[in-house]
Amino acid sequence: MALIEPFATQLDLQTGKLSPVTRIVQRRLSDMRGMYADTQAENQIIAQEGDRLIYEVYTATELPEEEGQVLHCTTIIYPGKVGDELHMTKGHYHAKRDRGEVYVGLSGEGCVLLQLEDGTVRSVPMGPGTAAYVPPYWAHRTVNTGSAPFSFFSAWPGDAGHDYATIERVGFAKIMVWRDGKAVLVDNPRYK
Amino acid sequence: MALIEPFATQLDLQTGKLSPVTRIVQRRLSDMRGMYADTQAENQIIAQEGDRLIYEVYTATELPEEEGQVLHCTTIIYPGKVGDELHMTKGHYHAKRDRGEVYVGLSGEGCVLLQLEDGTVRSVPMGPGTAAYVPPYWAHRTVNTGSAPFSFFSAWPGDAGHDYATIERVGFAKIMVWRDGKAVLVDNPRYK
Repeated sequence: MALIEPFATQLDLQTGKLSPVTRIVQRRLSDMRGMYADTQAENQIIAQEGDRLIYEVYTATELPEEEGQVLHCTTIIYPGKVGDELHMTKGHYHAKRDRGEVYVGLSGEGCVLLQLEDGTVRSVPMGPGTAAYVPPYWAHRTVNTGSAPFSFFSAWPGDAGHDYATIERVGFAKIMVWRDGKAVLVDNPRYK
Repeated sequence: MALIEPFATQLDLQTGKLSPVTRIVQRRLSDMRGMYADTQAENQIIAQEGDRLIYEVYTATELPEEEGQVLHCTTIIYPGKVGDELHMTKGHYHAKRDRGEVYVGLSGEGCVLLQLEDGTVRSVPMGPGTAAYVPPYWAHRTVNTGSAPFSFFSAWPGDAGHDYATIERVGFAKIMVWRDGKAVLVDNPRYK
C-alpha cells in the first residue's frame, strides 16, 4: 500500500460543495432512465425542459479504492419531482455487501432509503447534522424531501465497491413521493 | 456478521455533542499523565484547580468493532493549555496500521497532528467544514488551537483498532504550543 500524505478539503456547510475539487460527477435525468416510476413524466421533462440536473457528487482526491482507505465525498441533490416522485440518487449496494457507510447531513432536508435483498425497506430522515448509518448489507439511496438543495457528506470503506446494476434492474420496493403537501413512502408499482 | 438496523443520531453542529448518546468518554488531565511536555505545569494544575477536563468523546451506538462497519463519533476538546502546550487528545496509531480515518470539523479551531513511525510529523489545520484525511500508517492527535471548544466528527474502519501505547511511550516528535499570540509547532523535548 502506497504511503499517502495527509490532506484536507473544505466543505461548504451551506451548499455541500467541496474545494479544492478534483472530480464532479453530474447525474442528469437521462442518466437515470427507468429509475423513476413515472416514465411518461421522465420523457416529458426531457422533451420540454431539457436534461434536468438531478444531483452532483463532489470528490476532493482520488484515493485508491483499496482496503483500509476511508473514501469520502459530498452529494448535492437538487429539489424537484419526476411525476410525484422526489429527486433521488441512483442508489446502490456495495459490491462487497458487508461494507457499511456513514452520512452526515450538511444542508437541506432529505432521507436515506435502505433496502435488503429480500425487499425490506427502511427510511431514515436527514437534515443538517444528522449522522445516518448505512449498516452492511443495505442498499442506499438518498432523496431530497425539501424545497432547497439537500447536501450531505459520506464516508465508506475503500474496498466496498459499488453495485449499481442490481438496483437498476430491480429498483427499490418503496419510493418517496409528494402527496398532500408532504413526502410519503409508498409501494413502488414497478418493483421487480 | 449480524444484521444491523439502520439508525441515525443528531450532531449539534454548534457544540459537537451528539444525541441520543450511549457513551461519553471523558479524558481528564490525570488520564494523560506524562503526555504534556511540562510535567510541572501538569502537577500544578491538578494540585491547584483539580483534575481538569481536557476532552470528551461522544458515541451514539456501540457498533461492533469488525471489518466492514464504519465506526463514528464526535470529539470535543475544551480550550486551554498545560504550560504553553495546547489541549490535545491522547493520540493513537490504529492497531491495524493500514487503516485510515476521516475527520469533519464541526465547531471551533484546531488541527490534527499526524506522525509516521519514523518520526515524520505533519500538521493539518481544521475548522468548521474541514474534512481532514488521516491516511493509513499515520498516528493522529487533535489539538484545540482556539479559545472556544473545538469539535469534530470522525469515521474509521471497524477493524482498525487502537494502539494508544506506542504514543504513550514515545510521544509525538512535535508539539503544538502557544507562543507570541499564536499556535506554533515545535520540537518535543521529551520525544523518545
